[in-house]
Amino acid sequence: MLGYAAPLQRLIDELSKLPGIGPKSAQRLAFYLLNAEEADVAALGEAILQIKSEIGRCQECFNYATEQLCPICQDPTRDCTVLCIVEQPSDLMALERAGEFRGLYHVLGGALSPVEGLGPGDLNISQLRRRIQELGCQEVILATSPTVEGDATAEFLRGELAGLVERITRIALGLPVGGDLDYADQVTLARSLRGRTLMEE
Amino acid sequence: MLGYAAPLQRLIDELSKLPGIGPKSAQRLAFYLLNAEEADVAALGEAILQIKSEIGRCQECFNYATEQLCPICQDPTRDCTVLCIVEQPSDLMALERAGEFRGLYHVLGGALSPVEGLGPGDLNISQLRRRIQELGCQEVILATSPTVEGDATAEFLRGELAGLVERITRIALGLPVGGDLDYADQVTLARSLRGRTLMEE
Repeated sequence: MLGYAAPLQRLIDELSKLPGIGPKSAQRLAFYLLNAEEADVAALGEAILQIKSEIGRCQECFNYATEQLCPICQDPTRDCTVLCIVEQPSDLMALERAGEFRGLYHVLGGALSPVEGLGPGDLNISQLRRRIQELGCQEVILATSPTVEGDATAEFLRGELAGLVERITRIALGLPVGGDLDYADQVTLARSLRGRTLMEE
Repeated sequence: MLGYAAPLQRLIDELSKLPGIGPKSAQRLAFYLLNAEEADVAALGEAILQIKSEIGRCQECFNYATEQLCPICQDPTRDCTVLCIVEQPSDLMALERAGEFRGLYHVLGGALSPVEGLGPGDLNISQLRRRIQELGCQEVILATSPTVEGDATAEFLRGELAGLVERITRIALGLPVGGDLDYADQVTLARSLRGRTLMEE
């Protein structure tokens, strides 16, 4: 079997390293790039080369930022009495897209996971304590994922932050909007029943 | 709704332009790159930037090549009496992976398609005629895809090349190996029956 020309093989190899991109997709993408407009290919290559050097972490909330503070921490209109705790910046962005929350965030940088060797010391918790006190937070919303690790992290933080802030809440777990009850798993259904809310007239 | 930091948004936008990569996948890839090793990210960015400048076309068969001739046309052990006609270099590579064919290839650069406005003048056909004569080919294998366009192209080339070469053949159409007869479509089954071969003892 004959290989591809060296620069093409190199590109396919590098693309294959991306998550969710197998050898077949990598090949398809490489051929696409070979036939794409020069300017588009250059724009993609440069965007990739620049990403690591241009983006750092917000010194307050650990969101991605190009300056010392991320746009949310810089925004004076955000409500600093409510702090929403998430695992990753991508979770923060998902919540922002929902457009429901106007407070500040704090990115933990992961969840507690004995399997991956991630303990409390690996998460941004000491900064979290400091911020809660400095901001004078009245509510902390634990928005870690509803996974074993996320739930354990939420439970751990509930204990850690007790006494430091008045209200500690957890995002609601239940049926996704538009989801079919028939297709929901038992655990979700159980959580959905346990977390039922009173219907207002 | 608040956007991502500018360099991150730029990367997501560029990744979204790739085929088969929607906004969600682009975001996941961008976050992956943000957290990946500096060296890996640089290797990918550079492989993309170099691909257009380093790879050209083989002057004989129009396969991708880093030199004037592609590795297959440079290989003196290939059988130059059989020429296999494909639409794209990716088809050539797929056939090479099968490891069955030891002749030379000719890349048309597409298939006849009135919808896309691709006529005989847009394909590398004049060069094909010249090569058949220069190489003294005895067989031309039409390995265009079994699509409407590919079949039409094969049919067109059969007419064009008649008299120029002794044998003009078409790759076999039938059930894929490992495929379930039950799941095959009617057209494939019909072709599979029509192209049946005698079982040898």
